[in-house]
Amino acid sequence: MESQKPKKVVARGLIGVIADDSEISTVGIGKGLNYRGYNIEDLAHGCIFEEVLYLLLFKELPTRDQLKDFQEKIAENRYIPAKLAEVIELVPKDSHPMDLMRTVASFLGTIEPETEENDQFTISIRLSAIFGPCLFYWYHFHKSGKRIEVDTHKSDTIAKNIVRLLKNDGKEPDELLVKTMEVSLILYAEHDFNASAYNARVTASTLSDFYSGITSAIGTLRGPLHGGANEAAIRFIKQFKTKEEAEAKLYEMYKEKKLVMGFGHRIYKNGDPRSDIIKGYSKKLTETEHGRPDLFEISERIENIMMSEKKMHPNLDFYSASAYYQLGLPVDFFTPIFVVSRTSGWAAHIIEQRSKNKLIRPASNYIGPEPKEFTVLDMRSKI
Amino acid sequence: MESQKPKKVVARGLIGVIADDSEISTVGIGKGLNYRGYNIEDLAHGCIFEEVLYLLLFKELPTRDQLKDFQEKIAENRYIPAKLAEVIELVPKDSHPMDLMRTVASFLGTIEPETEENDQFTISIRLSAIFGPCLFYWYHFHKSGKRIEVDTHKSDTIAKNIVRLLKNDGKEPDELLVKTMEVSLILYAEHDFNASAYNARVTASTLSDFYSGITSAIGTLRGPLHGGANEAAIRFIKQFKTKEEAEAKLYEMYKEKKLVMGFGHRIYKNGDPRSDIIKGYSKKLTETEHGRPDLFEISERIENIMMSEKKMHPNLDFYSASAYYQLGLPVDFFTPIFVVSRTSGWAAHIIEQRSKNKLIRPASNYIGPEPKEFTVLDMRSKI
Repeated sequence: MESQKPKKVVARGLIGVIADDSEISTVGIGKGLNYRGYNIEDLAHGCIFEEVLYLLLFKELPTRDQLKDFQEKIAENRYIPAKLAEVIELVPKDSHPMDLMRTVASFLGTIEPETEENDQFTISIRLSAIFGPCLFYWYHFHKSGKRIEVDTHKSDTIAKNIVRLLKNDGKEPDELLVKTMEVSLILYAEHDFNASAYNARVTASTLSDFYSGITSAIGTLRGPLHGGANEAAIRFIKQFKTKEEAEAKLYEMYKEKKLVMGFGHRIYKNGDPRSDIIKGYSKKLTETEHGRPDLFEISERIENIMMSEKKMHPNLDFYSASAYYQLGLPVDFFTPIFVVSRTSGWAAHIIEQRSKNKLIRPASNYIGPEPKEFTVLDMRSKI
Repeated sequence: MESQKPKKVVARGLIGVIADDSEISTVGIGKGLNYRGYNIEDLAHGCIFEEVLYLLLFKELPTRDQLKDFQEKIAENRYIPAKLAEVIELVPKDSHPMDLMRTVASFLGTIEPETEENDQFTISIRLSAIFGPCLFYWYHFHKSGKRIEVDTHKSDTIAKNIVRLLKNDGKEPDELLVKTMEVSLILYAEHDFNASAYNARVTASTLSDFYSGITSAIGTLRGPLHGGANEAAIRFIKQFKTKEEAEAKLYEMYKEKKLVMGFGHRIYKNGDPRSDIIKGYSKKLTETEHGRPDLFEISERIENIMMSEKKMHPNLDFYSASAYYQLGLPVDFFTPIFVVSRTSGWAAHIIEQRSKNKLIRPASNYIGPEPKEFTVLDMRSKI
């Protein structure tokens, strides 16, 4: 009797596959999520986003002097070159703004290619600085036909620059709005081998250029199962007029075994440590001019039912949804803002992948047809 | 005594990881490589590229009528919309042509987005038809300032269209040149979970759009460890004036443990079945007007020494290098032509991934710092 062939292990979705070593972030030590050893709560409460960007790129938090230099570099890198502005204007008004972001990254690679001089750190800073300006240049160009200036206030942080460009009303940005954006950028900055970061690593693993890695990551983040989750969450929340309506809908969805966006996470089984942080800001925003206490209350009701009925915790996306909405961000700009933040993590992953590179190329389990006899064109059946 | 923690298995490069089922291609059945059950030699000798593209998209070879319809659709999809032409002209002359291809894919996604109407099959055909025209539009625009017409001959195959646009001399393309391009497009069309196809699947796995998948794949193919290998091979071969010079250099490289591009393959241990096919065309091309028998002879000498000394076989890239060179393709256009071909395989992989989707997200083995105490900005050491 022939012994049976061992069953091949097929790791669909790479679930449980430890794809490489990494020293960037983890949820496996200390309390919750850590970036390079620092706890996410400490970073969110004690830093501006630029400090976190610096930490992810250079492995240590900056000193006051280092941060000052770094912020000056960022401010210098906000300008949009004329050719890029032309391309941005060519992207239609009704395009998905993630397609704009992807195209910005790709086109910038043609006019400011990676070289020994224009190296991976320089490009990281450039992209982190320019993505927000490009997004809002495009926004106002199509909304009002105005070509806005994107770098008028050199001392603005990235968060303040975003709020200023979004509002574009000549006023100083509201402090709570800026702080919410700041914290959000920090929370979204990095998350280990998520799909987009891993995708950037696969691209980097062929020794391709830096822009290709970021372009791949943007395209990957674009999907509703990844970056699009906060957009899906607000669309879900916004459909309800009352808490009761939301509650009824949830029970209906449970019956139909439908997925509720913004809940659960492949990595966190006992709750996403980032959720409570952004929830706090979403709550504070309810008291501002454009605050929406109704949306916040509906969100809380949904959270409570998901917990009592399904033992599922909200992830970062759920309360980011109502926070971003109260900031006045157009819904389809939620994921592009995620790009501004996550470019820091992607950069760290590309740099790490390159430092100890191995081509990433898995195998497949072939389940297609057995060898077929070839027939020339005119002998093939018409049916 | 505490029992030791089990060592985590870290699959760097995903070597040996069976990442999913697939029914598109395999080297695991029959003789050598198969696309959907058909042997690569049969396809290369008996088909035009459009039949293979059809096979990869629709799982069966077309009948005469189906092929006719399909070719008409392709011919209709060669035109370059005005906005895209503007973007192409904005890509600088000295850019890496792969950055052009990546930008074309990304920008086209903004003006012809994926919809229920403009579905994944329609976009696949559009991209396979337009990539060649975009590449040569850009080439001639910068070379001579001419805005060439890209779809003058409706009955041209993709291969003939490429040779016609490359030469752009008003003459009918040479048959051997067209046939070589035809065969090369077939050989490069698909290869299982190679890095770029797998990368496209990771992007697709977040339910992102079709263009994002192709854009990711182009960025991944761009690297010298993947698509760039045939460019590296010709640069290597071209440096020698004689076979003897090549031979001496090889032994020198062995001593320095340097890699010779175009040899070996993670999947094929006993030779790449595609190599002999393209080698035959490279040899035939030596007898044409722009033939380079010297380059072919040097290539053969390198092949022989690699075999006798290192037991290493040439892969598809090695003789593709001298074939493409004799076709008159600029060296940095080798990989963009690979894009024209491989878009067919990428499309098949995106379609397959979507048909049975699971988010692709591996885990990492954290080797970074232990939890660190946070210090506020002004308390951080200056050194």
